[in-house]
Amino acid sequence: MAQKMIIDTDTASDDAVALVLALTDARVDVLAITVVSGNVPLDMGVQNALYTLEQCGSSVPVHLGADRPLIREHVFAHNVHGADGMGDIGLPLTGRTPADGHAVDRIIELARQHPGEITLVTLGPLTNIALALRKAPDIAGLFHRVVMMAGTGDHTGNVTPTAEFNIYVDPDAADIVFTSGMPLEMVGWDVSRNDATITPADSARLAATGPLGEFCTSIQRQLVEFCRDVTHIDGFDLPDPVTVAVAIDPTIGTRSIDAYVRVETTGTQTLGMTVVDHLGVTRQPANTKVVLAADRERFVEMLLTACAG
Amino acid sequence: MAQKMIIDTDTASDDAVALVLALTDARVDVLAITVVSGNVPLDMGVQNALYTLEQCGSSVPVHLGADRPLIREHVFAHNVHGADGMGDIGLPLTGRTPADGHAVDRIIELARQHPGEITLVTLGPLTNIALALRKAPDIAGLFHRVVMMAGTGDHTGNVTPTAEFNIYVDPDAADIVFTSGMPLEMVGWDVSRNDATITPADSARLAATGPLGEFCTSIQRQLVEFCRDVTHIDGFDLPDPVTVAVAIDPTIGTRSIDAYVRVETTGTQTLGMTVVDHLGVTRQPANTKVVLAADRERFVEMLLTACAG
Amino acid sequence: MAQKMIIDTDTASDDAVALVLALTDARVDVLAITVVSGNVPLDMGVQNALYTLEQCGSSVPVHLGADRPLIREHVFAHNVHGADGMGDIGLPLTGRTPADGHAVDRIIELARQHPGEITLVTLGPLTNIALALRKAPDIAGLFHRVVMMAGTGDHTGNVTPTAEFNIYVDPDAADIVFTSGMPLEMVGWDVSRNDATITPADSARLAATGPLGEFCTSIQRQLVEFCRDVTHIDGFDLPDPVTVAVAIDPTIGTRSIDAYVRVETTGTQTLGMTVVDHLGVTRQPANTKVVLAADRERFVEMLLTACAG
Amino acid sequence: MAQKMIIDTDTASDDAVALVLALTDARVDVLAITVVSGNVPLDMGVQNALYTLEQCGSSVPVHLGADRPLIREHVFAHNVHGADGMGDIGLPLTGRTPADGHAVDRIIELARQHPGEITLVTLGPLTNIALALRKAPDIAGLFHRVVMMAGTGDHTGNVTPTAEFNIYVDPDAADIVFTSGMPLEMVGWDVSRNDATITPADSARLAATGPLGEFCTSIQRQLVEFCRDVTHIDGFDLPDPVTVAVAIDPTIGTRSIDAYVRVETTGTQTLGMTVVDHLGVTRQPANTKVVLAADRERFVEMLLTACAG
Repeated sequence: MAQKMIIDTDTASDDAVALVLALTDARVDVLAITVVSGNVPLDMGVQNALYTLEQCGSSVPVHLGADRPLIREHVFAHNVHGADGMGDIGLPLTGRTPADGHAVDRIIELARQHPGEITLVTLGPLTNIALALRKAPDIAGLFHRVVMMAGTGDHTGNVTPTAEFNIYVDPDAADIVFTSGMPLEMVGWDVSRNDATITPADSARLAATGPLGEFCTSIQRQLVEFCRDVTHIDGFDLPDPVTVAVAIDPTIGTRSIDAYVRVETTGTQTLGMTVVDHLGVTRQPANTKVVLAADRERFVEMLLTACAG
Repeated sequence: MAQKMIIDTDTASDDAVALVLALTDARVDVLAITVVSGNVPLDMGVQNALYTLEQCGSSVPVHLGADRPLIREHVFAHNVHGADGMGDIGLPLTGRTPADGHAVDRIIELARQHPGEITLVTLGPLTNIALALRKAPDIAGLFHRVVMMAGTGDHTGNVTPTAEFNIYVDPDAADIVFTSGMPLEMVGWDVSRNDATITPADSARLAATGPLGEFCTSIQRQLVEFCRDVTHIDGFDLPDPVTVAVAIDPTIGTRSIDAYVRVETTGTQTLGMTVVDHLGVTRQPANTKVVLAADRERFVEMLLTACAG
Repeated sequence: MAQKMIIDTDTASDDAVALVLALTDARVDVLAITVVSGNVPLDMGVQNALYTLEQCGSSVPVHLGADRPLIREHVFAHNVHGADGMGDIGLPLTGRTPADGHAVDRIIELARQHPGEITLVTLGPLTNIALALRKAPDIAGLFHRVVMMAGTGDHTGNVTPTAEFNIYVDPDAADIVFTSGMPLEMVGWDVSRNDATITPADSARLAATGPLGEFCTSIQRQLVEFCRDVTHIDGFDLPDPVTVAVAIDPTIGTRSIDAYVRVETTGTQTLGMTVVDHLGVTRQPANTKVVLAADRERFVEMLLTACAG
Repeated sequence: MAQKMIIDTDTASDDAVALVLALTDARVDVLAITVVSGNVPLDMGVQNALYTLEQCGSSVPVHLGADRPLIREHVFAHNVHGADGMGDIGLPLTGRTPADGHAVDRIIELARQHPGEITLVTLGPLTNIALALRKAPDIAGLFHRVVMMAGTGDHTGNVTPTAEFNIYVDPDAADIVFTSGMPLEMVGWDVSRNDATITPADSARLAATGPLGEFCTSIQRQLVEFCRDVTHIDGFDLPDPVTVAVAIDPTIGTRSIDAYVRVETTGTQTLGMTVVDHLGVTRQPANTKVVLAADRERFVEMLLTACAG
C-alpha cells in the first residue's frame, strides 16, 4: 500500500525536483501539497508548484498557506533560485488555480482523517505546521513521520555561520515544531552539501532522461551559480529532494542520531540555528532523529528513475 | 441598529462582568464569543463564559480558541481571580457545551461576512487574533473597531513594573496585532486602576440590583483580596468591563491620544510592555488610539443599568 | 566645610554649564573631573571640559576615561550639541592638556582616600563608574552620594520612546551601577524637560550677567534648535545642570520616591530604559532615590548666581 | 631568548598543570600570573596559583583581577574540579600572599613595557583582558600572540550543547576580546576532548615522575569523575595544559583555520557559544587562528618532561 504523504513546500527550483520525486514514485500517495512563504513569496510558490505538477501530469490539490513568518519580516532566497524561483529560464509560471481550503486546515483535516498514517514532509519554513499545531494541538500525535529539510546537523549554516535558510526564516515556528512532540526527522543542509551533490556529469545524465529530467536540471541555473560562488561546489546540491528521498526510503539516510534539538530564537550571532545536543549535555530526552549522512549513489539513482518515468 | 460585536475573552471574574455589560445592552448585537487561554486554562474559560451567558439568558455561540500562547509557556492569573477564575464561590462551572467551529475560523468568517461592521473586543491575550491575522491577513481591514483591554498607557504594569497581564502572557501575538494595521483602540490597565474602581459602596449598590448584580459582585471575592494587597485599592477595579463600556460608548473614554505602540518581545526587564511613543520620538505614524482616562461615574451607572436589567 | 565632589562628564554644552555651577559654588570642592565618551568622542569631551575650566579660572585636574561603551558601539549626540559639542560657535577647543592618571583609577583612589565623604556626580554614560566597580568592588560603599543625570523617572525618553541618552549609550554599564549597592540618586530627563527649562527670557538674563553667562548661553545654539524641533520647548532644558544643582542642594529636588530601578539591556523596543518599579510590583528593595520634580525658580536663580560670580 | 609570557588563570586543577608546564620550561619567561574569577572564586584561584608556584619553586608574582564577570552573575565549576578547585585531596590552600597591583593594570603595564614581545595566555574567562582593553585600548596591538583556552571550534560545548565554560561564564568579555584586533589563537575544548586526553596509563607514568607528577595527577580526582560521567572519557582531558603547550610550541597544534569568530551574547539556547564562520558565510575577515587538532603524543611527552624536571 502506498505511503500517504503531505508535502509542505515553498516551491523553488529544488522543491520542484522534490515534488517530481514524490509524485512519480509508486510507493507514495501524495494527498495534498501545501505552500508556505519562504524561498519565494506565497503566490509565486503556488504557481511554481502547480506548474511542476503539470509536468508530472499530477492533479494533487495545492493549498495556500501562510504568506509570511509567524512574527518576523520575510526573507526570501531569490539569490539562490532566481527571480521566479525556477532559475529564470522563461517558464510560463502564471495563471494556474490552487485548490480551495487553507493549507493549515487541510493539514489538520487530513491528519485527523488518517491518524498515524501520513508522512508529513516539510521543504520550507515551518510556519504552516506551527499554525496548525497552535490551532489543533492534537495533530502532534497524528502523523506517522514528520520528515523535514531543516537546519543543519553539524551546526554549519548557509545564511549565517550556523543557520540554515528554512529555520532562519521562521525560527519561532521551527521551535514550536521541535518542542511539539511530533515524530521528527531532520535532514539538514549538511547532508545535502556533503551527500546530495549533483555533479555536471550527473546533471547531464538527468537531463538526458527526457522532459522531466530536462525540467529538473534546467531550473537549477541560478542554483549552479550560487553553489559555485558560495557553497564552493561544482554542480549543485539538492536539499529538498534528498529529504523526500529519505521520506520515501529511510535507508537513503545512512547515519543518524536521536538528539534533543532546539532552535535559537533570540541570538545575535545564531538566530535560527538548530542546536543539536550531540553530547547530551542538556540531559533532555531526544526529540528528533537527526540524519547526518546519505547514500549519494542511491539518491542519484532515485532521481534518474523518477525523471525517466 | 445594534452594533455587531465579537468578544474574545479568557473568561474570569471581570470578563464575566464585561460579558454581562455587552449581553444586556440593547445597543449591542454579540455575534460570537471566542475564548482564549489567559487568566485561566482554555476549558475553564469556556465553562465560565457559558455559565455567565446562562445568567444573562443568552444563547450567543461560544467558540474554543488557542489553548496556549503563540510561542511561550502559559502564565495564568489564578491569584487574581481564584482557582476557578470566578472567585471560588462554589458556582457549578462544568458540563456546558460550546459551539462547533474554531474561534480563529469564526473570527475570520464573521469579519468577511460583515466587512466594516463588527467591533472586535478583546479581553484576554491576543493569541486568537494573531492566529487569525496570520491565517487570513485580509481581516486586518475588515473590522469597524478593535477595542482591547491591553497593556498600560502610562507604562505602569501589574505583572512587572511595566507590563500588563494580557500582553505579558503573549507579547508576540500582541505585537502582531499592534503592527497589523487594524483600527486599534487600547484601554490599558492604568485606566482601570484610576477610573474603573468599584468601591465597597458601589459594590453594595450593584449587588442590591438583583441576581445579575449579586453574581457580578460575588465572583470578585478573590479580586478584592488582590486589590487590597497588590493594587492597594479598597474595593476592586474592572479592566474588562470598562473596555466593553468604551466599546459600547466611546465617550466613556474621556481622554486619549493617537500614538505609535509596539510590544517589547525580547526585554529582560520589560518583556510584554506596551511601549507607547508619547512624544513621537520614533516619528512612526500612530497605529493605536490609546485611551488614558474614563468617566468613572457613567461607567458605574452603566454597570447598575446592566445588572438591573 | 565644602562638599567633596567628583564629576564624571561627557562634556558637551549642558555639561559645561553644570561644571560652571559646581566650580563657582563655594559649597563645593571639586576634587577631579573625569571624562567619558558619550555626547562627543572622548578627546573632544576632554578639550571641552578643559576649556570650560579655563573660563572658570579653575585648575581642577581632568582625567581621561573610557573611550567607548562597555560592550556596544558608540552613539554620539552631535545633533543635540553641535559638531564640536559646544554649539559650533567657533570656540578654540584644542590643545589643552589633561592630567595624568586614568579616570577609573582616580575615582577609585579618591574614594578610598575619602571614604564616605565624596559626592560622585555623573553627567554622561556610566562606563567609567562601571569599570571602576568591576576593578574595585569595594568603592560601592565608599561614596557619600552618587547623583546621576540618568534615565527617565516617568518612562518617557529622548532617544527612543522610553530611553534617555546617557543610559541608552551604555545600558550594560548603567545596570552594573544600578545593581551595585551605591547610594544612588537619579535625576531623569523628565525632571529637566518639565522643570529645568530655560526660556528665552531666562537665557537673556543669564547672558547679561557677564562672560560666564554669555558662555553658558551661547554654546546652547544647537540645543535650542533641537528643543524647538524635537522636545517642542521654546528655549532649552538643562539636564546636567539641574543634576548638579540637586547634588549641591538636595532641596532643589522637590519630589522623589525610593524605588527599585533596573536598566533594560536586551529589549528590542526598550533598550536602555530605566525601569522604575513605581508600584513595587517586583517586591525588591529600593536601590535608588528617583527625583521626579525640581524647583525651577530656585534652579534658575542658582544659575544666575553662578554666572554672576 | 626565552619567550615572555603572561598567564591569566582561574586556577583550578587543570590550570595548575598548565602553570607547571610553563614554569618549568626553559623556553618560557613568565612575567606575571593574573587571576580571574571562573572555575573558582577569585581568592581561591589566587591561593591555588600560589600553592602551585610553590610546588615549582617559582616566585613569579601573582596578581588579583576581576572577582566576577563583566555584567552577569558568577557561575563556578566546582563540580568539575572539586570544592577547593584542586580535587579536594587535602592540600593546604590558604594563607599565601599575592603581589601588589591589580591584574588589569599589570597586564597593561607589561604590554606597554614589552611591545610585541609578550605571549598572553588565557586559561579562564576573559574578564581581565576585556577590562584591560576598555581601560587601555592601545594594548590590543602590543602582544606577540594571545593564546586562549576558549570556546569550541567544532561548536560542541561542555556547559550547554554549544558553549564551553570559559566563554559561557563571561560571554560579553569574550566578545570584546574577539572583536579587539588582538592576534588571537583559540584552543577550544574540542581539541582537549579529542587530543589532550590522559589515559589512566599516561596518568600513572606522570605520577611516577616524582612530586610534581604526583601533584599534577592527584589533583584531577574530581575531574576524573566528571570525565567518566559527562565527557564519557576514561581518564581525563587537559584543556588548559594543551593551550599552554600550543603557546610554547605552536607545532603542537596540528590543524588550524583562520576564521571570523564571534561570541553569542544574547541567545537563549546558545549563550556563550563561540560562533566560528567555517565556510566564510559572513564574508568578514578572519580574526582568530582556530586550532582544531593537537599532537597528543608530543603533548604527553611535554607533560612528562615538565614533571620530571
